[in-house]
Amino acid sequence: MTRLQQQIQFILEADKLKQVVRWTLLTDASRRENAAEHSWQLAIMAMVLTEHHCPRQLNLPRVLQMLLIHDLVEIDTGDVHFCDTEQRRRQIKKEAEAADRLFGLLPHDQEQTLLGLWQEFENQESEEAKFAHVLDRLQPLLHGYVTEGRTWRENSLTGHQLFSIIEPMKASVPEIHDLAADLIADAVARGFLPK
Amino acid sequence: MTRLQQQIQFILEADKLKQVVRWTLLTDASRRENAAEHSWQLAIMAMVLTEHHCPRQLNLPRVLQMLLIHDLVEIDTGDVHFCDTEQRRRQIKKEAEAADRLFGLLPHDQEQTLLGLWQEFENQESEEAKFAHVLDRLQPLLHGYVTEGRTWRENSLTGHQLFSIIEPMKASVPEIHDLAADLIADAVARGFLPK
Repeated sequence: MTRLQQQIQFILEADKLKQVVRWTLLTDASRRENAAEHSWQLAIMAMVLTEHHCPRQLNLPRVLQMLLIHDLVEIDTGDVHFCDTEQRRRQIKKEAEAADRLFGLLPHDQEQTLLGLWQEFENQESEEAKFAHVLDRLQPLLHGYVTEGRTWRENSLTGHQLFSIIEPMKASVPEIHDLAADLIADAVARGFLPK
Repeated sequence: MTRLQQQIQFILEADKLKQVVRWTLLTDASRRENAAEHSWQLAIMAMVLTEHHCPRQLNLPRVLQMLLIHDLVEIDTGDVHFCDTEQRRRQIKKEAEAADRLFGLLPHDQEQTLLGLWQEFENQESEEAKFAHVLDRLQPLLHGYVTEGRTWRENSLTGHQLFSIIEPMKASVPEIHDLAADLIADAVARGFLPK
């Protein structure tokens, strides 16, 4: 196969991410989102929110590329709710195998580059990776709020748990942390989820 | 509203792109794709295919950002098939209004930046914008081929028309052009669409 044929094979395989359904609802609650459109929305978020990172400016292209590929492994493993820690532990080995298979469809140099980006995200090895994780936590929170907490109740979440999830935002994106904290407090006050 | 609140409002509005359905089928033909997941796939394509652009290297971050936002206006206008030239002409004014409304949700400096990127894409003002258009034509072609031409027949397309669509790829991405031409010829030979 030529390099181009390998790349096309990867692109067609990536299409399967559109069939991986996540817990998060669309803002109008009409259906759950899939992991491909979720990845797109996170990239849009990165484009408009990086200015809130401090103290230093982030490498936006790196954040974008990490977000675009971060969920690809779910083609093989499916999505696991971020609160299901037991299942997430079991998932780690499977996800590494999925990354090898999927990025292995590409020419060797690109395989190494994308595998490196994915590992950087997974292991939160850089400020860019940590920021990408912040967005990956913030988006379901925003959607949870505007859909009045339906998925939170489905997963028996409490306000206390959500506060602990946003805790790591405090240091690097304080303004985003405070907005998220206000949302959670308001969600509890409105009865979208218990304290 | 603070800058952050304006940005969050934009992000939640952008979510509506997940409901804009396009003609193109997923690779397994199980359903049509939406414009958000389509934008994601084009960004993935850009990440692995830019090396085929010649003579000069492209600014990948610019291509990615253009692709991520290029369809946002369809939240207001809906998707129009690329062969429906009459409808596309009528669409131009509506899309400009949609861009003003959507990007206008952002703080002024970001509004100007994203509006500029969107116009650059629309008017094919740069090599990056032209390459983004190449990907936007190539993806439905790949999906059309693997789904045995169902959407081509729905739109009464011919091989001749598809060849004219890929013609602009010849100069800047000759290897991609040749692969696309081979696919079309093979699709005609297999009877996926008439000559």
